[in-house]
Amino acid sequence: MSIRSRRENNSGRHRFTMSTFRGMQQPELSKKLSRLIKSENSAIGAHETAGRERIAIASALSEWGESTGDEAISDLSDKLGVMLAEIGEQEDLYAQNLEDSRGVLKQIRNMEASVQPSRDQRQKITDEIAKLKYKDPTNTRLVTLEHELVRAEAQNLVAEAQLSNTTRTKLKEAYDLHTAAVIERAEKQIILARHARRLLGLIDDSPVVPGDVRSAYDSEETARQIVEDAETELRSWESNVEPIGSPTEDVARQMTSGSLSGGTEQDMESIATGRSGVEAGHAVPSSSKPLEEPVV
Amino acid sequence: MSIRSRRENNSGRHRFTMSTFRGMQQPELSKKLSRLIKSENSAIGAHETAGRERIAIASALSEWGESTGDEAISDLSDKLGVMLAEIGEQEDLYAQNLEDSRGVLKQIRNMEASVQPSRDQRQKITDEIAKLKYKDPTNTRLVTLEHELVRAEAQNLVAEAQLSNTTRTKLKEAYDLHTAAVIERAEKQIILARHARRLLGLIDDSPVVPGDVRSAYDSEETARQIVEDAETELRSWESNVEPIGSPTEDVARQMTSGSLSGGTEQDMESIATGRSGVEAGHAVPSSSKPLEEPVV
Repeated sequence: MSIRSRRENNSGRHRFTMSTFRGMQQPELSKKLSRLIKSENSAIGAHETAGRERIAIASALSEWGESTGDEAISDLSDKLGVMLAEIGEQEDLYAQNLEDSRGVLKQIRNMEASVQPSRDQRQKITDEIAKLKYKDPTNTRLVTLEHELVRAEAQNLVAEAQLSNTTRTKLKEAYDLHTAAVIERAEKQIILARHARRLLGLIDDSPVVPGDVRSAYDSEETARQIVEDAETELRSWESNVEPIGSPTEDVARQMTSGSLSGGTEQDMESIATGRSGVEAGHAVPSSSKPLEEPVV
Repeated sequence: MSIRSRRENNSGRHRFTMSTFRGMQQPELSKKLSRLIKSENSAIGAHETAGRERIAIASALSEWGESTGDEAISDLSDKLGVMLAEIGEQEDLYAQNLEDSRGVLKQIRNMEASVQPSRDQRQKITDEIAKLKYKDPTNTRLVTLEHELVRAEAQNLVAEAQLSNTTRTKLKEAYDLHTAAVIERAEKQIILARHARRLLGLIDDSPVVPGDVRSAYDSEETARQIVEDAETELRSWESNVEPIGSPTEDVARQMTSGSLSGGTEQDMESIATGRSGVEAGHAVPSSSKPLEEPVV
């Protein structure tokens, strides 16, 4: 399983990552994250399943209500079903948003995988030099190797900087998306659940004695209105998540209050800076240029 | 599959429900709800799976962070993992609460199943009388049957009243629990997600150029504090769901406002503490009063 995951995810790069078996000081860079990305995939699958089931159950509830032959139960179970189905839809949307977050993690994994060869190369030359110095210290090839090593070190220096920049920027971006998705699902499902509770309030459950007839159901209009209210409120939903700040910002914020709810002007600004702060990572020539290069 | 579900769920009562095959005017009372209850079971299972996966992924994230050898990433990924694991725990708690709601639905199903024989009995006698009146109108057994029918009708009258009362009360109760569970998961996960976003704010993703060393990581204390804040806020979470009203109440409520979530001072507070995600919905004062009403 774990092996399979590594194979799948590192695919073409496997020949390089083999070198990690030489010693612990060289971790197989992208293995851990590859597994995480794989697990995330099945977690997302579980949310999708839950969403689908919810929608099916919602229509089953409506069908059941109709079958009771009770006008009130029939109407309200149908409208309750509409709410529950939408809660299921939101579960599904949540899964899609998590998928986006997962996609960003893949960028870190790819960068990790692409940095591995550069580390291996440097190590290989270092080892070769050591060996030769021991066996044949006067060998002229040593000079060539020393030059190769300098080049390999320079190349690795760039690779490590790219890795550090990508890791931090993309980790931030991935969990920005992830946590925003959690909040979106939560806020929207709260709207739906609260309106669903209003529908339940229309069920007259005052007990009837044998032979009695219930007072006729007259809340059809109210129920219809509640569903409309829910639709309206859901449509007007807007994300109000606090933008991800920078360390200094956050320290300041945390001095002033332990609370989280943002909304001040500079918060609104830092939505921009927070986002473009991520792009800033790409904006530095030394690190951004190679970032655009296809992963080898 | 559907057959299996019926068997399983009606178990001992199966011999009675067979009678429904005689005609469509007699629905197999508890079949539809039995299936719904079965589907709900697998939906709950999906939420449990998602919760478990989340917890596993959270620790994988922490492990990965450690393996990067980047002090900041190591500390923050670990603490972010704590938050994500708790989000998973909440997913699991949600599943447990849904299970309670499902248990209440079973009470309706059982009542349906127990009412079926009474309906069948009455029908059986009615049929018998009709047959006899046609074949042998003077048969004295008719008198006995008429008496039996009166008793069967009386018994059925009680059964139907019980069914109506149970259906309405338990349907209300089941989805009261269900929607309250949706809201609890939502509100708690919003708390966790918002604090998680504060942690992300501690990741310094300003780009480094090759050879540069990053400024040392100094947010360990802040990060620890954020996790503490989240724990405190989560521990102090309290349900503030609007109690399920009665039809009359709800009509009144719906006259005053279309929206549900209140917007008075204490609501603003709860926004500040990040307890309620639905800021948008929290704008209508008129509907906040019913929130305070005791559960009837």
